Amino acid sequence: MRLYMGLVHFPVYNRNYHRIASAVTTLDIHDLGRLARTYGVKGLFIITPLVDQQRLTGRVLSHWIYGYGGRYNPHRKEALELVRVKADLSGAVEEIEATEGETPLLIATDASDQGERSISYGEAGALVRGDRTVMLLFGTAWGLHEDVMKTTDYILAPVSGKRGYNHLSVRTAAAIILDRLTGER
Amino acid sequence: MRLYMGLVHFPVYNRNYHRIASAVTTLDIHDLGRLARTYGVKGLFIITPLVDQQRLTGRVLSHWIYGYGGRYNPHRKEALELVRVKADLSGAVEEIEATEGETPLLIATDASDQGERSISYGEAGALVRGDRTVMLLFGTAWGLHEDVMKTTDYILAPVSGKRGYNHLSVRTAAAIILDRLTGER
Repeated sequence: MRLYMGLVHFPVYNRNYHRIASAVTTLDIHDLGRLARTYGVKGLFIITPLVDQQRLTGRVLSHWIYGYGGRYNPHRKEALELVRVKADLSGAVEEIEATEGETPLLIATDASDQGERSISYGEAGALVRGDRTVMLLFGTAWGLHEDVMKTTDYILAPVSGKRGYNHLSVRTAAAIILDRLTGER
Repeated sequence: MRLYMGLVHFPVYNRNYHRIASAVTTLDIHDLGRLARTYGVKGLFIITPLVDQQRLTGRVLSHWIYGYGGRYNPHRKEALELVRVKADLSGAVEEIEATEGETPLLIATDASDQGERSISYGEAGALVRGDRTVMLLFGTAWGLHEDVMKTTDYILAPVSGKRGYNHLSVRTAAAIILDRLTGER
């Protein structure tokens, strides 16, 4: 398994479906880093073009990897060592290419059903557990902008259960998606 | 399915394995409420004996159910309407008994392997999807105190994957556990 994750803060939608850059939620870095470490993900990219948000993320990482946090909680250090900060998706893809020697398959995640463009958890799981390098993309705020979606190879079917309520946090949605796709259960 | 959840803030462990009452993390209320709504859980109990923490939780619920939050985001309202605040586990159990007419089976969750006391996801899932009322208990901080564990009917096997890293947030662990047990996938 050569799996990467990207947490995208631009371009995403706000609640009025305008294109925005969202602020970084530091808790997301912790929760997703720990998920990445749990499920054998090779890297988690925090993607934001906002320099102050890149710096904020850098400070969080530095505290938990090199500062007091790393001595206080070595498990957290282990998780946050998987995190990188990039200005845009192409920067993350380039770093993965440099590491893996191939372009990752990009799988977008979305809370709404994309119809024919969607792939099932079975299909996506086979890709994730196969030989190819795969990058899963998660959107913050109200989700990944169409401009990202149209550049990805696949869009994963929504998590939503039978009840049609589909408003999970990105943290909990990412947890469920990793658990389903990596076949760890 | 007659499933309930409890998020326990006392008695739990701190990092030195002392018995403490943890503070409520308001984000947990949101994330777990939305999970409850997604997976058809009938109620989520925030369990804390600390009066200031009960009030804090009450204020969050009030804002999102009756105040501006409910108009701003009706989906959030729908999720938080499932949340109740109780001083202790027995108070939550009594409310469930009053609603369901039977005592719930209590299933504790824990990040460590409890050996013979653990039940598998297959066994627990059969209970959850069966006719009995079931309550899943999640610990905050460093997990449920032994005093809680010894009063429950079952302890669920840990989420941990093959890599043995077992330090997820309660938010993401609860997401994975609900997805595995309710059989929504």
